[in-house]
Amino acid sequence: MIILGLDPSLSCTGWGIVRVEGSRISHIANGQIKTDAKAALPDRLAHLDTVLAAVIADHAPQCAAVEEVFLNDNPQSTLKLAHARGVVLLGCARAGLPVGEYAPRLVKKAIVGTGTAAKEQVQAMLRVLLPGAKVVGPDAADALAVAICHANHRPR
Amino acid sequence: MIILGLDPSLSCTGWGIVRVEGSRISHIANGQIKTDAKAALPDRLAHLDTVLAAVIADHAPQCAAVEEVFLNDNPQSTLKLAHARGVVLLGCARAGLPVGEYAPRLVKKAIVGTGTAAKEQVQAMLRVLLPGAKVVGPDAADALAVAICHANHRPR
Repeated sequence: MIILGLDPSLSCTGWGIVRVEGSRISHIANGQIKTDAKAALPDRLAHLDTVLAAVIADHAPQCAAVEEVFLNDNPQSTLKLAHARGVVLLGCARAGLPVGEYAPRLVKKAIVGTGTAAKEQVQAMLRVLLPGAKVVGPDAADALAVAICHANHRPR
Repeated sequence: MIILGLDPSLSCTGWGIVRVEGSRISHIANGQIKTDAKAALPDRLAHLDTVLAAVIADHAPQCAAVEEVFLNDNPQSTLKLAHARGVVLLGCARAGLPVGEYAPRLVKKAIVGTGTAAKEQVQAMLRVLLPGAKVVGPDAADALAVAICHANHRPR
């Protein structure tokens, strides 16, 4: 089973792909899709859509996982995130990938063992869980984390 | 110039198409794209995307207009709306349509003359501005309103 994890945002969407064989999880690839903050919103979304479609075509994942979104203390940026998240979910649906959605607490719990773990703890555990993986940035790390969460929680 | 107005939401996205010739605005078509509330979010977005692409292919608009989105007293439903709005903006960008974005106040002002007009006033003025148009519902009416707003405010 090849799983695509996604951490969507308008400025930088993280993606991470892992392979699950039995209880073994291994790293395949990860990356970040950045959009030009000076471009118009529809063009930024189109760039995200095009690159994500290429990632899916390259790696042929069989399912996807994305964090749930909640309003936080910056509602305007959460609204932008929701635009990007809509495009990302559409890209998965178009490619026929079933999508698992997970609360951020559950993702942290799946990686570190506690739902209140700091980002740095998640990244440190990723280095243990996916030894040798070169993670390109924090958004790619979050994407790999949600992919691993899906590996543990997906319906079988 | 053929303008596509859009009033996106996850449950029911309104669309309306008008033709502008000089100062004359005429109605071409309008409709509403409903999604199944029992379906998964990615599948609902895919349905919206597919039907919108067909509307664009059928009527070949040259530009599009969408209301800006703000957080209101129901933030969870606004977040869902933003997912749908991301998909709608992507559909426009993919079709090569430049998109104008307008504050709801400006749309009401363009139709009724005041930014604080009630929905019913907007719908009554639409019957005057687009005589004979059979408007299928309130979301289609809002979409026609933003198309007319764009006819008055677009860059020339």
